[in-house]
Amino acid sequence: MPELRERAAELDALDELAKLREQFVLDEVVYLDGNSLGALPVGVPGRVDDVVRRQWGELRIRSWEESGWWTAPERIGDRIAPLVGAAPGQIVVGDSTSVNVFKALVGAVRLAGEGRDGRNEILVDATTFPTDGYIAASVARLTGCELRPLEPAEVPGAVGPRTAAVLLNHVDYRTGRLHDLPSLTSAIHDAGALAVWDLCHSAGALPVGLDEHGVDLAVGCTYKYLNGGPGSPAYLYVRGDLQDRFDSPLPGWNSHADPFGMSPSYAPAPGALRGRVGTPDILSMLALEAALEVWEDVSIDAVRAKSLALTDFFLECVGAYVTGGRVESITPSAHAERGSQVALRCPDAGEVMKRLIERGVVGDFRHPDVLRFGFTPLYVGFGDVERAARVLGETLG
Amino acid sequence: MPELRERAAELDALDELAKLREQFVLDEVVYLDGNSLGALPVGVPGRVDDVVRRQWGELRIRSWEESGWWTAPERIGDRIAPLVGAAPGQIVVGDSTSVNVFKALVGAVRLAGEGRDGRNEILVDATTFPTDGYIAASVARLTGCELRPLEPAEVPGAVGPRTAAVLLNHVDYRTGRLHDLPSLTSAIHDAGALAVWDLCHSAGALPVGLDEHGVDLAVGCTYKYLNGGPGSPAYLYVRGDLQDRFDSPLPGWNSHADPFGMSPSYAPAPGALRGRVGTPDILSMLALEAALEVWEDVSIDAVRAKSLALTDFFLECVGAYVTGGRVESITPSAHAERGSQVALRCPDAGEVMKRLIERGVVGDFRHPDVLRFGFTPLYVGFGDVERAARVLGETLG
Repeated sequence: MPELRERAAELDALDELAKLREQFVLDEVVYLDGNSLGALPVGVPGRVDDVVRRQWGELRIRSWEESGWWTAPERIGDRIAPLVGAAPGQIVVGDSTSVNVFKALVGAVRLAGEGRDGRNEILVDATTFPTDGYIAASVARLTGCELRPLEPAEVPGAVGPRTAAVLLNHVDYRTGRLHDLPSLTSAIHDAGALAVWDLCHSAGALPVGLDEHGVDLAVGCTYKYLNGGPGSPAYLYVRGDLQDRFDSPLPGWNSHADPFGMSPSYAPAPGALRGRVGTPDILSMLALEAALEVWEDVSIDAVRAKSLALTDFFLECVGAYVTGGRVESITPSAHAERGSQVALRCPDAGEVMKRLIERGVVGDFRHPDVLRFGFTPLYVGFGDVERAARVLGETLG
Repeated sequence: MPELRERAAELDALDELAKLREQFVLDEVVYLDGNSLGALPVGVPGRVDDVVRRQWGELRIRSWEESGWWTAPERIGDRIAPLVGAAPGQIVVGDSTSVNVFKALVGAVRLAGEGRDGRNEILVDATTFPTDGYIAASVARLTGCELRPLEPAEVPGAVGPRTAAVLLNHVDYRTGRLHDLPSLTSAIHDAGALAVWDLCHSAGALPVGLDEHGVDLAVGCTYKYLNGGPGSPAYLYVRGDLQDRFDSPLPGWNSHADPFGMSPSYAPAPGALRGRVGTPDILSMLALEAALEVWEDVSIDAVRAKSLALTDFFLECVGAYVTGGRVESITPSAHAERGSQVALRCPDAGEVMKRLIERGVVGDFRHPDVLRFGFTPLYVGFGDVERAARVLGETLG
């Protein structure tokens, strides 16, 4: 439809973030899988090469100090902080998201009194990304708590005097539904429990406001909208006023108050670095640091505005190009409930996604019947959106 | 002393491993800190560049399958296996050493009956690298066990019907003392407990024989004698016949029997990959894979023979070059009790190490009074050893 192509061109011309696309390595493919693995920022290969050849190869052990390796987890945490609405000193980078969920949730249960005062229940989003649920079950088992899976909407009615902590995902990885972080956090606090948020599918795509909304602990990955690279380290947020009491279940030497004192007894460091564990993986960590430089001077509100415009336009194009009833969006249409992806239910989704990828439109398939398209506002344009919907329409026939 | 220089030249000429030095990026520095951070193998920078530019930058999400990212943890585990005497399928790479100590020790306590049958005690090497002790304390707290720190030599007398698991270091990071893994493991087994070994300071420097000696679980880092790069991922060994009952405290989606089924309930994968947790950090992981290629056709027995020859020669040169009484070796002189490092006690060790480094001899200082010199047989030569001892003698005056 020529009018949709024209609209796309107009929207691209007006897009104040369009110039950021140059900061990524992209080709003729329409890449709508940045919610799984972000594209490569152009500054990363050179930085990684310097880390490998000079910092490791030439300076070797001296780099722990001279190249700033030792302080990377908290330094890079401070670079992520403004993207999730956190003041400095509250985020530390390292380990996988799963491991950080473990630290955060055990930490939350302990902050809540560790089963004392009758607080021996953990609530967890039943529709969460599986790893969060598995780790929550492990935390419940190790801390003597009971685990109660439920829909996020049920939390305000379910959270109560027995609840120690609630683990929720900000955006559902499958449907793309955005949960109401401010009101859910508030309901959790009203019941005297702690709120732990998983930001994997929201950080870098929309404002989070961790400090503003008083979130207690949060975790997130960095390889989706933050473009840190495959399996780049995750992060842990511990609100400033909770840090002194944060009691990590993984007290590695990197979180010791005097790590090179090599004391046989553990004394936790102050601040965010209490969330560190072992030796940080420097190659992945410094690739992430280089990747985060693209955010310099980018407003997360502008990112959110473009994200909504992209997903709105995609839904409109799908409506125009795809035969009625062939797919059904399971992503909420209300802006306040939508993350930065669109999930379309389609009975033959697995086969359809294969054909889309063959035709240069990359999204992903989620078992059993979901086509998932992620929209990274930093490098996806409206022309991409129109083309993706058009190819989808042609593929579905 | 000309005769020591001549001896060094002769030993280097006869050294069958000498040619391996070409496979590392080295300069005029005598690098005796490979027990902290191994030197850069020449094949790594090109591989990492390919991973970043092509696998991530061009193939993007397709690389999880097409570039073998998904199977890297167990594939690289199988590359480490022969270096520690393990058959394939028992080692998985990922996470830090600290996190793997946590998995291994909770796993061991659960294998021992998790506090049932009266087995509610964990023994831990009191002289261990601190992180192991901190994590052991956390494991004890979370599993309801009592933690008993003791000297490794005391283990046979202390291990008993109450003991669930014993965590020991194969080589003491400070003194360089090699503990008797076969007999200690045997004593632990005789008492019905599980043996968990930390191989950080032995793997890649001497034969370990995990399978031969029936070790239950083991962990190790890969950035020392395995030269994987700063903070490269650690590994976990779970003996084949224990894998079906290995019950990880960190059950992330990567260890699920059907990870892409996204089931809300956890069902562990069979085999070593039960030790996986979250998304593996691919950049660090594949740098390690490239680094391990230098081991192709290297005999670990030859490595051990050279390691002992290097440390013997160093002690001899120190004896010749250093004024009597100025330093005292705290590394055992018996071969059976010596790892691949020499630790010299010296009251002004911190200042002395600074001056050594200024003069191009890089070892490290360990609080409060230890000069630590690590000897990586793959790239350290006898000429290096003579020079290091000579410069040490000159520095001490």
